[in-house]
Amino acid sequence: MNNRTKMNILKPANDIFEAFVDPEKIGHFWFSTSSERWTEGKTITLRYEEYDAQGEIHIKEILENEKIVFEWAGGHIVTINFLPSENEGTIVEVMEEGFDEDDDGFIESLLDNKEGWVYMLSCLKGYMEFGVDLRAALVK
Amino acid sequence: MNNRTKMNILKPANDIFEAFVDPEKIGHFWFSTSSERWTEGKTITLRYEEYDAQGEIHIKEILENEKIVFEWAGGHIVTINFLPSENEGTIVEVMEEGFDEDDDGFIESLLDNKEGWVYMLSCLKGYMEFGVDLRAALVK
Repeated sequence: MNNRTKMNILKPANDIFEAFVDPEKIGHFWFSTSSERWTEGKTITLRYEEYDAQGEIHIKEILENEKIVFEWAGGHIVTINFLPSENEGTIVEVMEEGFDEDDDGFIESLLDNKEGWVYMLSCLKGYMEFGVDLRAALVK
Repeated sequence: MNNRTKMNILKPANDIFEAFVDPEKIGHFWFSTSSERWTEGKTITLRYEEYDAQGEIHIKEILENEKIVFEWAGGHIVTINFLPSENEGTIVEVMEEGFDEDDDGFIESLLDNKEGWVYMLSCLKGYMEFGVDLRAALVK
C-alpha cells in the first residue's frame, strides 16, 4: 500500500530539487532545519522548531534534479520524483510506502500522511512560485 | 465516518467567511466561479473552468462569520467552521460526512477527499495572507 501525491510547480526541476537538499531552503516550506546537505548515504536530522520535534531520515538514493529516496519513521520509504511538465514547470510526485492494512489506525495513518504531503507540496509551491511562507498552520 | 481538516489562517473570520460566500472571491483559491452569493437555502453552481467541470451545492445553514453547512455530491454534508485563534487569526475547520466503509474504493475516496480539502485550505491561506493564487495544480 502506498500514498501518492503530485503537484505541478511552475519552476525548473533544478530549483525545486535544490529546495529539498539545501539546508538553507527547507525552512521556507517544510521542516524548520535540516542538519546538512542531502547526499546519498547520509543520515540527516530534520527539526520542527514550532513543535519542538525532530527525526532522522536516511538518504538511500539521489539522482540530481530527478529523484530523492529516503527512509524515515516506521521504516517507510519516501520517493520524490521531479518530472518535466508544460511551460518549463515540474510535477513533484511524492510516494510513501510501508503502510500495513493490518495495523491499528491504518486509515487514520494514511489520512494523516496524505494531509502532510499535500500541505508540504502546497507550501513548496507557495515558496517556489511566490516566495511566501505557509508553513506550520495545520491544526490537529 | 467523517474527514476533518483544520488550518490556521492569520486573518479575521469575517474576511475568510466572505472569501467563501462572495462569488468574486472563490476563484482566487477554490473553484473558478460560484453562480451567486451563498445564503441559506440556495442552490449554487460551482464551476472549474480548468477541468470543464461543474457541480451544485445546496446551502443548508449559514451563521455569518461562524459556520457554513452544505450538501454536495453523493449526499455528503460539508461543515465549515470559523474558530478564533491567537493573534486575531482564524482556524478554518472543514468536516465532510457521508462516507460508507462498505463502498468500493472507500479508502481511495477518503484520501482523495483529504487531498482536496488540505489543498483548498492551503490555497485559501495563500490567498488570504499573501494574495497569491496556488489553484489547479494537483495532478491525478
